[in-house]
Amino acid sequence: MRLDAFEIISVGNELLNGKTLNTNARWLAKIITKLGGFVRRCTVVRDDVDDISSAIKESMERGVNWLIVSGGLGPTYDDKTLQGVAKALNRELIIDAEALKMVEKKYELMAHHGIIKKANLTPARVKMAKLPRGSKALPNPIGTAPGVMIDEGDRKIICLPGVPIEMKAIFKESIISMIKKVMNNFYYEESVHATGIVESELAPLIEKTLSNNPLVYIKSHPKGYEEGTPEIEIQVTAIAEESSIAKKRVKDALEQLKSMIIEHGGIIGRC
Amino acid sequence: MRLDAFEIISVGNELLNGKTLNTNARWLAKIITKLGGFVRRCTVVRDDVDDISSAIKESMERGVNWLIVSGGLGPTYDDKTLQGVAKALNRELIIDAEALKMVEKKYELMAHHGIIKKANLTPARVKMAKLPRGSKALPNPIGTAPGVMIDEGDRKIICLPGVPIEMKAIFKESIISMIKKVMNNFYYEESVHATGIVESELAPLIEKTLSNNPLVYIKSHPKGYEEGTPEIEIQVTAIAEESSIAKKRVKDALEQLKSMIIEHGGIIGRC
Repeated sequence: MRLDAFEIISVGNELLNGKTLNTNARWLAKIITKLGGFVRRCTVVRDDVDDISSAIKESMERGVNWLIVSGGLGPTYDDKTLQGVAKALNRELIIDAEALKMVEKKYELMAHHGIIKKANLTPARVKMAKLPRGSKALPNPIGTAPGVMIDEGDRKIICLPGVPIEMKAIFKESIISMIKKVMNNFYYEESVHATGIVESELAPLIEKTLSNNPLVYIKSHPKGYEEGTPEIEIQVTAIAEESSIAKKRVKDALEQLKSMIIEHGGIIGRC
Repeated sequence: MRLDAFEIISVGNELLNGKTLNTNARWLAKIITKLGGFVRRCTVVRDDVDDISSAIKESMERGVNWLIVSGGLGPTYDDKTLQGVAKALNRELIIDAEALKMVEKKYELMAHHGIIKKANLTPARVKMAKLPRGSKALPNPIGTAPGVMIDEGDRKIICLPGVPIEMKAIFKESIISMIKKVMNNFYYEESVHATGIVESELAPLIEKTLSNNPLVYIKSHPKGYEEGTPEIEIQVTAIAEESSIAKKRVKDALEQLKSMIIEHGGIIGRC
């Protein structure tokens, strides 16, 4: 089973001053996990070329297989992601003919619909077509800035816009099929709620379950006290080469854990 | 004006498999920004001692003043934050008398209220009182695991639980006053919506405003097209040593930018 390591880099001051909740990283993490990938780290950096470049280099040094960078592809002065990527990979930023065509078409369409007066390629518009040398432009079915795909040795760096609807559209249209080409894993998860047991009582039961079921992962999430009764959500997950194997592993582990919780005096299900 | 650099490290597999949205990092980023601090980076790592330790070391090497780590302080096998901190700082993990007293009291209270049967200090419970040598335990007014404060030279490392309500309570009770003691900055922000102008048209206007107002920060967030009319949210922010100065800087820049947008044919306000 090939289990590729993914990292996510989110770029944007708005994510670090508390204005914006990073729903993009969560969406990416969820879909990558469901595709059977392994998300090892997510980094959020400011709109700063050096910060972006360092984060990318660090990620490459950790041996990531797929690096997904979101945000900072637009036309404004602080959209600096591609400058950061170019710096990290020591590649020149050049006007990419394919990307320029994509951008040009978008503005022609906007002018046609009366959204803008002139479709001319101003510096701010050309900026979105300046890609690190050797990039492949990915069509943006929603907005203007193309996505960007770069092969760096056997690693892939994928840059997506920060606007969620655009990020998701490019990921679905261009990236999912690429990932599926190299990885064919199945992810399965199931959660239960346990009441009447606190996390410190649950801890040794989880450890015992894991020692019998080393190929699953179990995580407990305490949910507080409902009328004085503690409630914990327990999630069991597995990745396997077959959907049925992943499912069986999760179900087996969960059955054992549930029995032990009941034996301890806990209740399965919400109170 | 002293402008301290903050970093946030969020620990937890659930943040990297898409189960949980990282609202903790956003809450921390927002409150630190409002306290006049500068959040430079946020890193999300898995429940892995080496990953946690590397992220902490990297952050220290970047010269962070305050490192806030959230998640991984609980009693289960995968609560590994303090092991990671101990490894990064090359300090021993020892049972902290103060922390043990806090933990013990919590379980006595739970037993008293009939939530648990026995308040005895099991290994899972003692685990929450094993802190890196030289730590200061911070009372947790809501849950069981104490927060942890470590002085490393002139840098502060603060570990908080991942359960949002506990994280926030400890931050408010113990951390805000510490930050205010060393930093006395004021942050001001104001946003407007512009319609009838696209981001590539707005870009040169923002640049011109910034060259006249170098002490503010301006960020545009395209909001899509309402009935064919583009809408952009523009946020202007400043940090200064006086509240009135920060406010004036933001207002001056915003007035100039608004005039330019109107001159260009755009409209201020939602359409």
